[in-house]
Parts: sequence; structure tokens; C-alpha cells
Amino acid sequence: MTTLAPNVLEMATGGVTTPAGFRAAGVEAGIKGRGGLDLALIVSDRAAHAAAVFTTNRAQAAPVLVSREHLAQSGGLARAIVVNSGCANACTGDEGLRVARGMAEETARLVGCPANEVLVASTGVIGVGLDMNKIRAGLPAAMRLLGADQGPLAARAIMTTDPFPKEAAARISAGGRPITIGGMAKGSGMIEPMMATMLGFVTTDAMVPRPLLDRALRDAVDDTFNAITVDGECSTNDCVMLLANGASGAEIDAGTYDVFVQGLRAVCLRLALGIVRGGEGATKLVTVSVSGAASRAEARQAAKAIANSLLVKTAIHGGDPNWGRLIAVAGRAGVAFELSRASVMMGPIVLFKDGRPHDEAAPEAAAYLKHPELTVVVDLGAGTASSTVWTCDLSAEYVRINADYRT
Amino acid sequence: MTTLAPNVLEMATGGVTTPAGFRAAGVEAGIKGRGGLDLALIVSDRAAHAAAVFTTNRAQAAPVLVSREHLAQSGGLARAIVVNSGCANACTGDEGLRVARGMAEETARLVGCPANEVLVASTGVIGVGLDMNKIRAGLPAAMRLLGADQGPLAARAIMTTDPFPKEAAARISAGGRPITIGGMAKGSGMIEPMMATMLGFVTTDAMVPRPLLDRALRDAVDDTFNAITVDGECSTNDCVMLLANGASGAEIDAGTYDVFVQGLRAVCLRLALGIVRGGEGATKLVTVSVSGAASRAEARQAAKAIANSLLVKTAIHGGDPNWGRLIAVAGRAGVAFELSRASVMMGPIVLFKDGRPHDEAAPEAAAYLKHPELTVVVDLGAGTASSTVWTCDLSAEYVRINADYRT
Repeated sequence: MTTLAPNVLEMATGGVTTPAGFRAAGVEAGIKGRGGLDLALIVSDRAAHAAAVFTTNRAQAAPVLVSREHLAQSGGLARAIVVNSGCANACTGDEGLRVARGMAEETARLVGCPANEVLVASTGVIGVGLDMNKIRAGLPAAMRLLGADQGPLAARAIMTTDPFPKEAAARISAGGRPITIGGMAKGSGMIEPMMATMLGFVTTDAMVPRPLLDRALRDAVDDTFNAITVDGECSTNDCVMLLANGASGAEIDAGTYDVFVQGLRAVCLRLALGIVRGGEGATKLVTVSVSGAASRAEARQAAKAIANSLLVKTAIHGGDPNWGRLIAVAGRAGVAFELSRASVMMGPIVLFKDGRPHDEAAPEAAAYLKHPELTVVVDLGAGTASSTVWTCDLSAEYVRINADYRT
Repeated sequence: MTTLAPNVLEMATGGVTTPAGFRAAGVEAGIKGRGGLDLALIVSDRAAHAAAVFTTNRAQAAPVLVSREHLAQSGGLARAIVVNSGCANACTGDEGLRVARGMAEETARLVGCPANEVLVASTGVIGVGLDMNKIRAGLPAAMRLLGADQGPLAARAIMTTDPFPKEAAARISAGGRPITIGGMAKGSGMIEPMMATMLGFVTTDAMVPRPLLDRALRDAVDDTFNAITVDGECSTNDCVMLLANGASGAEIDAGTYDVFVQGLRAVCLRLALGIVRGGEGATKLVTVSVSGAASRAEARQAAKAIANSLLVKTAIHGGDPNWGRLIAVAGRAGVAFELSRASVMMGPIVLFKDGRPHDEAAPEAAAYLKHPELTVVVDLGAGTASSTVWTCDLSAEYVRINADYRT
């Protein structure tokens, strides 16, 4: 499922502190009412080139607005990223902006850099004020604990309803020199990134010129974070931030760009699949592949529609090889679709082909659907383009988690 | 909730056989494996003008294709509608088309009319063949039982997972002459009509010229069947059919068109709300009103996005006044949205206004959310247009029903 590109030499265990020159920390600042780690810090030992993609939601949270502003002001440089969980600092008006700026300023003061070289992110409940005093009290502890071995704690400190932390790292060779890329992410609900994503933080010790770094992040995110969905919801706080500090001494240029993107994509894909595996109430990781589309955009659109269909997600949850639901969604997805040439497969099992059901294969397909990781393939019969997205099943547990989130 | 237009004189109890000159029947033909009524027949005592709207799903079921064909061939005349539940006859290829045509032919032979004056509809599992022998065996019994008092049995015979039958009727006065409009519908899952709808059958004893009848159906459906959603799914078999047989002697013209549409809308709205109330696993009927939109289309788009949001539907199920989720959906709905001027109300209770939370009202809102029928209002702060749609909450029961549908 997480096939590596041929030039990615090694998928190391590790995360944001695996690349050289990065330290991190995760501490408990008392922001989560129920306790637990809730404040994470990533610091580069030198100013790094920074790129980021942000939510396209028009209700953008204060940390999103402030991080955008800082990237513009600093010309794309960053020394640190500060992240809290337990409170999204979204829909919090001017006071929320003051707190987000305050988080950056306080971090900058401790790190010793300009405030606009600090990026800020928050995740948690929308519409509740974030207490600056808790941030101010927690940051010195995070500074003291900063370490190149503290990535795992930082990955825990950004979790909300996530059942487990998401970390990944890869090593590539660029022009004969080794480069490391590492990352961490949080997911769990409100997950369907639109040209942006949930919280993801990726570091690399490559030296990457800013325009290439921007392009690489967009290229990598498109097939990874932007190709997953848990519940079709795009949040107010989504972002993926990428820091490249050059500590390895290796520089990415046009000749090594492709291998860099392959490594970046491998890290992003592992993080993104971790988010789906840990989706709220999820019991299965489902790869949805659409082929036979008139264009790649239509393939993606149909795959997203299938991946978000409640009827598909509940059928998969129940182990029901109900291919008719897949056809029904493909038919309403607003893309070219030719029923008489369409087909549906679950894993290797053909259930519908050339307009004809193959229900004799249903028992075999039902057995296949018991796997925790599975693939469904829908051919639209309308062209040659294809696209893959990842989703999870929909369980009664999802309803329980989201009916009880605040109250 | 089901406010009547001022000119709609009376919302009679009743259904498709309440208008003069219509008889119906519902029988058990053995199509549903678990037993129960599964074959419905509506017959007009004279050829009626017929209008219909069909699913926009590109995987159109055989009965949809055949009914379209018959309406075109007959020039918009119909004597009868034959409907089965328990099998959708969708994705069934040429054999499915033969069965759908056979249903019409057999009905026509018994009624004594051309085959193309019979409309056909089916609902149930997709991709399973419909047994023509069962239809052939069931139809004579339905013919024998046809009666002006059998509408309630016909309404039961079109049910699948519906918890109760949906019928409605209204009486209007058109130019001083009384006209009756009656209808029945089935819903329950796979409900988000797109320029069409699930199965709905409406009759009237008015004489309505064909172009007016077509226009009236589209006008009425737009604010009723097309303004509801249970799970965002548009099926392969959706249709609303309207027969006008003129048995009342009253004719609709340009002068009485508006009152006719009001009556038609009242019947369609009652049926549509019945579908939402009886949505799979639903415990609450939720009216979603969006105001402050840049256009009516954007208001509808935002309202549909809110009404289909899993996070909104689960929060309402859990009685959690989580207004942040409403704002997050409005922000990602792809419409003009101005956070600093936006507002959220649950019933009469303001929870967010002019960019500021009013969480002090949360306990009052939580109490309000205990009602089985409730309204949420989101103002986008971007204009003056508005739109209303209806949805239900999302419960663990929905997951149970749809994980277990076939197996």
C-alpha cells in the first residue's frame, strides 16, 4: 500500500527530528481539559526555507492567517513551528489573532529569531478561545526539553481524537549525497483536504531553493494528503508545513528535483495513510481506484465521491460486497460514465463487467472484505484516465465519537 | 413546518386515490424475500396527461429508461403506473429492459390501453434481476383489488426500509372549481435527489395542458423533493410522476396556474418531509435555513453542504450545540462567505454573530436540540439570498441498517 518510489533508498523509522539540524518537543500545557500532551515545538538550528499549503475553507482560523502573514513577511524563512492541540483558535475574532501572534512572538523570543520566522498551528474545538497564559507557561518547558530524539513526543502532542501518532521518514540520494525527509501529522475527523490538508509538518535537511520547495510540496501533497478522506469535511485549520534547512549540505536543483519529490511523497503518503487508518471509528483502510475516466480530474472526482459515500462506507464496514452502490455513486458523480462498459472489482474479484453482474463472485468478495486493508476498483468505461484516493469505513463508533465530542 | 399556501383550501387525509377517477392497489407478489406488499398499481379511468422528473444519475435503471421512452412515445399520456419494491431492476442490462417493458405490456393488456401509456418504477437492491414471472403472477390480483380506497395499500407496497408509508392530499379551488391533488412516496436511504427525486407519485383530477403540467411539476419539486437529503446519495431509480386526468372537470390555465402549483407543492412538501422523518436511522427532522447568501443558488449549495455534513448531523444527533461545525461547513461550501458578518442560530438562540461566539447560550441551545423537529439558521454574511433544505440526524442505527442491508 505504501510502495516506495525506486529512488527512495530507505524508509527509516523516524519523524520530524530525523533530518539533521532539527529538534522538537512535546509538553502538557493544560490546554486539553482532559490532560495530556498538547503543545509541540519544532526548531531548526538555522533559518530554513519554508513552504506551506493551507485550508481553502473560507473560515480560516487565526493560526492559518498568522502563518500566511509570517511566510509573506519573512520571504519564506522559518526557524520554528509551534503547535497546540485541544483548541483550534478558529472563529475567535481579533482576540484569537492576538493569541496566535502572541504564540509566535513568545516562541521567537525563546528561540532568538524574528517573530515572523515562527509558524503557528492549532487543532481542537472550533469557537473556543485559546488561553495565552497556558501557552506562555508551557513554552519554556518545551524549550528546555527540545531534542533530536523528541520527535515522537511532538507527534503525540498534536493529537486530538487520533488513536495513534503519525510519523514517517525517508532517505534519498540526491546527486550522490544523502538527504533525509521526516514528518508528523494529526488527523482523525473533519478530514477531506481541498488543495490543502489537516496538520502535517515535514522537515528535510536538504537545501532547497524556495520556488522548488513550494512546487515540491504542492506536487507531493496532491497525491497524498489531498487524496484522502475520512468524512468529507475540510476544516478551518488544515495546513501542511515543510521546512528545508540545508543541514545535510546537499542542494536540490532541477536535476535532483524528481527524486526529492519522490521522497517527499513517500513521507506524505505514509502520514496520510496513517490519518485514514486512524480515522474516527475506522476499522478498515480502503484504497479506491477509479480507471476508465475521461480525464484525471474526473477520475479524482469519481473516486472522491465513492470514498465519501455513506452507503459505500457502511457496506464495506458490514463486509457487504454491494457493488451496486459503487455503480450508483459513479453514476451520480457528475463525470462521464458509460454503464455498458463499466466494471467493479473488489480486490481481484470482478463483480460487474460490461453491464453484467457477476454475483456468483459475491461470497468470495465478502471474504475479501474482511481484510483490514482493501482495494475497490471502478472503471467508468468512458476513457483512459485514472486516480486513487484512500478512505476508511463508516462505523457506529464514528457516530458515537462525533455525537459526544463536546458534551 | 408544513405550512400551507393561503389558497390551498384543505389538506385532506388521503393519497393517490383521493382525486376523482383514480384507483390503486397494493399486493404481495413475492418479490421481497422477506415477504410483504411489493407490487403497486395506479390506474386512471381515462388517459391522463403525465409529467415526470427522473434521476440525473448516469446509471439509469431499466424502469427509468422505459418510462422516459413511453412518455415520449405517447406524447405525455398515461393510463397507469406499475411499481414494484424489493428489486431496483438497475444495472441489469438488456434482460432488465425486457422485464421493465414486460411489466408495462402486461399491465397495458389488463388495463386495456397501449403499452406506452403505462409508466414503470422499481425500488430495492441494485444489480439483482427482477423476476418477470412474479410480476406476471401478481398483476391480475392487483387488477382485481383496484379501488378508490386502496391508496394506503399502494403506499405500503412501494416501501423498502421506510418505517412508515408517506401519503398526502390537498384540495384547491381553481377558478371557483374544486380540484384534488394526492400523492404517495417512498424514501428512506440513498436520498439526495438531484433535479429529480426518489419515487413519488402524484395524481390530480384537474385538466392540465401538458406544457403547464411539466412546468408545475418542476416548480413544485424544486422546493420540496429536491430540497431534502438523508445521506447525500442520488439513486439510479429516482422519479416523481404526476398524472392529471381532468375528472373534476376543472381546467388549469395561466390564471389558475399559481394556485395549482401551491397545491402541488403542499402535497410534495408533505411527502418529502415524510421521507426525511422516515430517513434511515433518523430521530430528528432538521430544517436548515441559509440566509445572507450572494445568490439563491449559493444559499442552496451551502444549505445542502450543511445538511449533508456528517459532523453537523452527528452533533445534532448527540444534542451538541456545536455551531463551529456549521461555520466550518459554510466556509468550505464553495460559496461567498464573510466570517466577520456571519451568524449561527439554533431555533431562536444566537450562538455566533458578527464574528463573536455566544457560548453562554450553549445550555439553552442544548435543551432546544432535544426537540424532534428543529431549525438551524446560518447567515453567510455575504448577501441577501436564502434557501431552505430539510435533513435528518445521523445515528448509529443508519450505520447498522446500511452495513446489514443485503447480508
